[in-house]
Amino acid sequence: MGVYPTIDLLKHRPEKVLKVFIHPDAEGNRLEDIHGMCKKNDIHIEYNAMVIEKLAVKGNTYVMGVFEKYEEELSKEKNHVVLVEPRNLGNIGTIVRTMAGFGFEDLAIIRPAADVWDPMVVRSAMGSLFQTRFKHFDTYEEYIKEYEGHNQYLFMLDGAQEVKDVKFEGPYSIVQGNESKGLPDHFKEHGTSVYIPHADNIDSLNLSIATAISLYEVSSR
Amino acid sequence: MGVYPTIDLLKHRPEKVLKVFIHPDAEGNRLEDIHGMCKKNDIHIEYNAMVIEKLAVKGNTYVMGVFEKYEEELSKEKNHVVLVEPRNLGNIGTIVRTMAGFGFEDLAIIRPAADVWDPMVVRSAMGSLFQTRFKHFDTYEEYIKEYEGHNQYLFMLDGAQEVKDVKFEGPYSIVQGNESKGLPDHFKEHGTSVYIPHADNIDSLNLSIATAISLYEVSSR
Repeated sequence: MGVYPTIDLLKHRPEKVLKVFIHPDAEGNRLEDIHGMCKKNDIHIEYNAMVIEKLAVKGNTYVMGVFEKYEEELSKEKNHVVLVEPRNLGNIGTIVRTMAGFGFEDLAIIRPAADVWDPMVVRSAMGSLFQTRFKHFDTYEEYIKEYEGHNQYLFMLDGAQEVKDVKFEGPYSIVQGNESKGLPDHFKEHGTSVYIPHADNIDSLNLSIATAISLYEVSSR
Repeated sequence: MGVYPTIDLLKHRPEKVLKVFIHPDAEGNRLEDIHGMCKKNDIHIEYNAMVIEKLAVKGNTYVMGVFEKYEEELSKEKNHVVLVEPRNLGNIGTIVRTMAGFGFEDLAIIRPAADVWDPMVVRSAMGSLFQTRFKHFDTYEEYIKEYEGHNQYLFMLDGAQEVKDVKFEGPYSIVQGNESKGLPDHFKEHGTSVYIPHADNIDSLNLSIATAISLYEVSSR
């Protein structure tokens, strides 16, 4: 998937890497880093033009890391982001990148959802994907049962409180709904419903924008 | 480009519409709105399956508005967003949508830049494009010369002041750089350089995210 995502993968999740493919035509000083990290972690490097040309989703791909998909337990102490049925690959990647920027390391995803391992997510996360713990759940109820110590803040267009007036008490979960439908109304019973004020000449903010604003707001206090 | 963008186009810029194409198979109650608005503004409707099938960039497109591209003078009194050499179509669309959400109506774009009329921008702007005034400039210097009454706030990774400590004095311009390079260092001499604090495990926030946070910050005071 490219030199930089592979370096991030090797840096943050070396134990998940099965193999690294390098194109025989590859050059550049980052290759040395890759060689060094692979050697240190006993990861096999294979020079193979055919595999890369066949699998690359965009041109000029010279390096690919092959890894095992993984899921992890989320932290019971740290604050979470919860995405309920996210569908847009670019949004998920951008949210993961923004989470890393604001120090959020834990992402819960409620299914059905787009695949976090899609190359488009990896790319738009700009390396942050491998710094993030994430876990999938079939229902939101399953998530809150498992992380019952987390206070739930549900972002909804008709939330009860404006985001800047909300006192977020940790550990908490920032819960954002699906791109087209938002969160179902009955989610309100699980915590504090919150809105981000905006003019009514748009239906809603984009999902990655709304999530970023919520993370910025809680981080900048 | 679809029913909703066409309705927004007819609502906000009827004078720019040359024609509306409707697919003979189209149905739904929004068609009546389109008919009404076209009639009121004396706009010709043509039923033509072939044109739509040929031009549609995605499936299930049943309505297309044909309009003259336009540019407008920006307001001398209202606050602006300035994008310097933006390249990503989705970012531009998302920024336009976010601007509409926070009451910003004026967008300056410094070339070279992606085409604001690309269907991808229209789509990700979700109808906000036709509510926004925008104007292109060959250089940033040309822009500030024309809008010399605007105070410039330059968003840069190494900005001098943290965004929440900045007093934005209107009319002002929120200036954001290119996705990969940000703003050139010498832009600092034209105003106040500002940064959005984030952890150093990411290089930068995504352009549409950084712009949204800046608009949220100035709007939520």
